[in-house]
Amino acid sequence: MDSYIVPVELKKAHRLINHGPTVLVSARHDGVDNVMAAAWACALDFSPPKLTVVLDKTAKTRELVEKSGTFVIQVPTAAQLQLTHEVGTSSLADEPGKLARAGVELFGIEGHDLPFVAGCSAWLACTLIPEPHNQQTYDLFIGEVVGAWSDTRVFASGHWNFESADPAWRSLHYVAGGHFYAIGNPLTVRGSEPVE
Amino acid sequence: MDSYIVPVELKKAHRLINHGPTVLVSARHDGVDNVMAAAWACALDFSPPKLTVVLDKTAKTRELVEKSGTFVIQVPTAAQLQLTHEVGTSSLADEPGKLARAGVELFGIEGHDLPFVAGCSAWLACTLIPEPHNQQTYDLFIGEVVGAWSDTRVFASGHWNFESADPAWRSLHYVAGGHFYAIGNPLTVRGSEPVE
Repeated sequence: MDSYIVPVELKKAHRLINHGPTVLVSARHDGVDNVMAAAWACALDFSPPKLTVVLDKTAKTRELVEKSGTFVIQVPTAAQLQLTHEVGTSSLADEPGKLARAGVELFGIEGHDLPFVAGCSAWLACTLIPEPHNQQTYDLFIGEVVGAWSDTRVFASGHWNFESADPAWRSLHYVAGGHFYAIGNPLTVRGSEPVE
Repeated sequence: MDSYIVPVELKKAHRLINHGPTVLVSARHDGVDNVMAAAWACALDFSPPKLTVVLDKTAKTRELVEKSGTFVIQVPTAAQLQLTHEVGTSSLADEPGKLARAGVELFGIEGHDLPFVAGCSAWLACTLIPEPHNQQTYDLFIGEVVGAWSDTRVFASGHWNFESADPAWRSLHYVAGGHFYAIGNPLTVRGSEPVE
């Protein structure tokens, strides 16, 4: 694991996705790893931290999540624009070499039998909270965040530093058809104190 | 209603929140209007369009949503940074003059008995899809989008134009404690076609 990658306190894990980035969802079951892009992921609770993610019934990653009961939500960077689009528009079911073609490199984190995508800015290891009605009716999955990590070159001591990091670290925010926005400049409310 | 405000096709309504902005939630019941900020709102489906939003049990707006079965999700702008923070950190239950103090101006749209917040960039009128288990266990509310509008100065013909509009129109992406990011620059995947 890269020495820049450090754990994030679980009580601050929601900050990794609070600003609404498009994420990568990865999962592993029975020797099969897969990664997909998801624009529809969202924080759900602070403590214990939870999140929601929408996984279409056609997605191979969904099957791996359902079978293993675990998954990773990670925040890709502007440098991973092409990778993010590619894993979001091809399926492992149709193309066994999908991850290699998209340039996805996976790494491990001790204590978690999960595929983490290298080069992202943040990672949230999740345990599925089974909610069959939501999953079947809405394709809506709820996870409890059981581990969180960030790359300290862009998120350190509980804070994003997009403004001082290289622009290649900015998060991606998907609109439609290959068109994204990067996250922009900081805006601070008058009279705000620095947050811990 | 301002002449810049025009309907958005329902099949493109998800684009209004796809990039993960912090939103304002407004609702009306029995002569009471309220507005709150929510960082945890997310698209859920394309057609019919649906979305999720997390509404804490302490929020007066939640009570209005539960009683009326309808609400508005709207996208505030960088110009509304202070307003967004103020409606997100005070409660109508404690302060009856909350909306006036925060500078919230409401307007109506024909056919919808709902309070729309003036000055936003986009509005989604929603009908609550009652899911008592989600609401009680997770504070998670699901809405079907039954009407959508945008201000054409920043979203027109199905597309955000953050890059050409005044920066005051940029969407807000909340992190923590008065600290937000504005949405940034467009990034387009190699070989992408323009989307309709």
